[in-house]
Amino acid sequence: MSVSAASAAATSSATVPAAPLPVLGREVRVPLVTGGEVEYAALDYAASAPALERVWNDVAAYAPYYGSVHRGAGYLSQLSTELFETARADVAAFLGCRADDELVFTRSTTDSLNLLAAALPEGCEVYVFETEHHASLLPWRTAAVTHLDAPRSPAEAVATLESALEARTGTGAALVCVTGASNVTGELWPVAELARVAHAHGARIVLDAAQLAPHHPVSLRELDVDWVAFSGHKLYAPFGAGVLAGRADWLEDAEPYLAGGGASRAVSRRADGGVDVEWHTGAARHEAGSPNVIGAYAIASACKALTEAGFDALVAREQQLVARVRDGLAAIEGVRVLGLFGPEAERVGVLSFVVSGWNSSHLAAALSAEYGIGVRDGLFCAHPLVRTLLGADAGAPGECGAPEGGSLNAVRVSFGAGTPDEHVERFLGAVRELVEQGARWTYRTEGGRCVPAV
Amino acid sequence: MSVSAASAAATSSATVPAAPLPVLGREVRVPLVTGGEVEYAALDYAASAPALERVWNDVAAYAPYYGSVHRGAGYLSQLSTELFETARADVAAFLGCRADDELVFTRSTTDSLNLLAAALPEGCEVYVFETEHHASLLPWRTAAVTHLDAPRSPAEAVATLESALEARTGTGAALVCVTGASNVTGELWPVAELARVAHAHGARIVLDAAQLAPHHPVSLRELDVDWVAFSGHKLYAPFGAGVLAGRADWLEDAEPYLAGGGASRAVSRRADGGVDVEWHTGAARHEAGSPNVIGAYAIASACKALTEAGFDALVAREQQLVARVRDGLAAIEGVRVLGLFGPEAERVGVLSFVVSGWNSSHLAAALSAEYGIGVRDGLFCAHPLVRTLLGADAGAPGECGAPEGGSLNAVRVSFGAGTPDEHVERFLGAVRELVEQGARWTYRTEGGRCVPAV
Repeated sequence: MSVSAASAAATSSATVPAAPLPVLGREVRVPLVTGGEVEYAALDYAASAPALERVWNDVAAYAPYYGSVHRGAGYLSQLSTELFETARADVAAFLGCRADDELVFTRSTTDSLNLLAAALPEGCEVYVFETEHHASLLPWRTAAVTHLDAPRSPAEAVATLESALEARTGTGAALVCVTGASNVTGELWPVAELARVAHAHGARIVLDAAQLAPHHPVSLRELDVDWVAFSGHKLYAPFGAGVLAGRADWLEDAEPYLAGGGASRAVSRRADGGVDVEWHTGAARHEAGSPNVIGAYAIASACKALTEAGFDALVAREQQLVARVRDGLAAIEGVRVLGLFGPEAERVGVLSFVVSGWNSSHLAAALSAEYGIGVRDGLFCAHPLVRTLLGADAGAPGECGAPEGGSLNAVRVSFGAGTPDEHVERFLGAVRELVEQGARWTYRTEGGRCVPAV
Repeated sequence: MSVSAASAAATSSATVPAAPLPVLGREVRVPLVTGGEVEYAALDYAASAPALERVWNDVAAYAPYYGSVHRGAGYLSQLSTELFETARADVAAFLGCRADDELVFTRSTTDSLNLLAAALPEGCEVYVFETEHHASLLPWRTAAVTHLDAPRSPAEAVATLESALEARTGTGAALVCVTGASNVTGELWPVAELARVAHAHGARIVLDAAQLAPHHPVSLRELDVDWVAFSGHKLYAPFGAGVLAGRADWLEDAEPYLAGGGASRAVSRRADGGVDVEWHTGAARHEAGSPNVIGAYAIASACKALTEAGFDALVAREQQLVARVRDGLAAIEGVRVLGLFGPEAERVGVLSFVVSGWNSSHLAAALSAEYGIGVRDGLFCAHPLVRTLLGADAGAPGECGAPEGGSLNAVRVSFGAGTPDEHVERFLGAVRELVEQGARWTYRTEGGRCVPAV
């Protein structure tokens, strides 16, 4: 089943829960520049999501039992080792890993993809759409990279990849890297179809699930992708850990990602004064240094929380919010939601937009300062994509607060399992009010950012 | 002032606090194989230290305010960005960084040293003692490495380095990597003197402070070292972050450690289909991906806690524990404490030892199962050093529990600012009892470890 098909199924069949999952920070109140304070509306989930209360509680319950993993003889070391390895198994199950897949705990999606890049077989060719986040676009520094043009539909994405792989002259290893859901548009990519095309041409495929995994069940087995990468901090577990999971062979054949303890099984001095190293196999090979036990455990806790809450139902609820934001923004004069695949494309709770006559930084600053809403403005670490999407709107940046400046950047609103309806409604009301009546405060540029003038 | 001199000064002049700093897990009780339960004695600080309560409380207070750093327009993003950069400044101050030093948040000491290894100028030679932890010994994979023999005194360490650098024929860059305190013996190395020698020969020096920073004030400026690396999880802040701090130039000139967002300032598609990247300068260059804000903040919190509690006084208290353990072990028949620099060497709260006729894994298992004491047995990711130290004791490993097996491994006991006197006393009493009366339980080998037979 493709990611898209799974989404449609989830939306149509699951019971929609009445309330969001409890997250930390729900009751945080922030000051408004216009006076008073308001409950903070965290609508930047695509950058970092708040921790689920369940995740925090699990971490808090474990913290007194924290100990070194793998080699300590003490009770807490043994408990922590078991907890760490159980976390690995739980996350592997959440991802639908195959029996012989490896799961390495990294620090982030960026780290996971850099690890895979360091493990490419010699001469491996890489195929990547120009529309990727920089974390997927840039790590392939030692490989011959083919950058694929932005497609204008999921079908065109499949056709573009197919053409590129058909034109391939090399016979060595090849890797396709593709995002599951765009961090700019939220649009779902046809991962299963791309995997089928990749495999038909002897290539492998890695799924950047940084934006997909928090919003959508992901199964390596069902999607038939070779690897998947994601980050804890976008999956309600912001404790510095990420994941790379998938085929063991390239990882086993590669030099250890980091050299150090944990990755080295045996080290000895040679008679000539040099040092011989026998490296570990398995996940340990790429996890040198003391593992981030709390980070890994937090991810496993989040996976369990999403599963137990009913991930399909959470998807269904999020899809209601997506529809509400899409319809709400469409009803505001001058707003253009960015997308490659058209306004009806399936997407997760991530939407970027520009407003005619508004500098995006100005709009984002006003949403924060006057409404207590946290969104993001910029190019979202996906510069080629955002420039393509902005097209004619990508004029020169105006002064902060000068609406005639055009939209060099965009505004992104993103949400997920912890988002109450009220945040989305407040956001839509605020954009409408700002567009219709203008900002009430004045803003100026400071350190490259737009801030309220004081 | 050398690290050694600083230690002596601290020991002699500071007021010794009556009580340890509060840490998580103080009240954790663990079951004994012989029945009942007991308060857990965490004596494996050299692997991972418990979190200070202060650190936990700071993290807990911040967690609801967690947000994405650097680019979010919302209040919590701005707050988190400020908190992250303030943490950077606080840790830099704790380390005595110079005005133009760079401080990069990494995941661990291992990661920090791998980052530095990736930033070496082309042709850089590396000088490293064979006595280093694997994290310091192994990362220099692309460099020409000279492994220096284990010295038998601090003066011999200095002389050994001086001879090696004098014999150097290359004229390019050179780096000396040295630990501040051994993770096996706890012995202090003459860092300032080694730095003087390195600089006199045109080499630079990086200090592996993984075991030093938690036990001892470290100042880049005073020691005149070029870089320092350490881990949060040994410094009472186990949230997946570490630090590399020091000279900016090699870091600025190097390719970004990880490729991705955060490290990339501008990315654009070329007319020929390729991609141009302009990388950031400064710490961001090597911090691609969303930073581990909680991990960095936890380290800063720990630094402040140690400073505010009076680090010199904490050192003085720890030195009393060191003396107690050293004297206590010396009084037990058949115990040999391992050391390069002799029994009177200055050391932090890390001691490894073997017991005549005891398999070290057996002893460690019995300390855990019968006394609730968590120590470590093994080669401590410093295989060449431990083999050198074991010498004639390094016989073949016996069956677990068979005292005639000899001491292929060693036992390590380690402690710090959170260790109550009772843990140390219980440990000494337990070793004495085990040596004099033998273990009360029987043990067997399972998965390469020694465990109670059931």
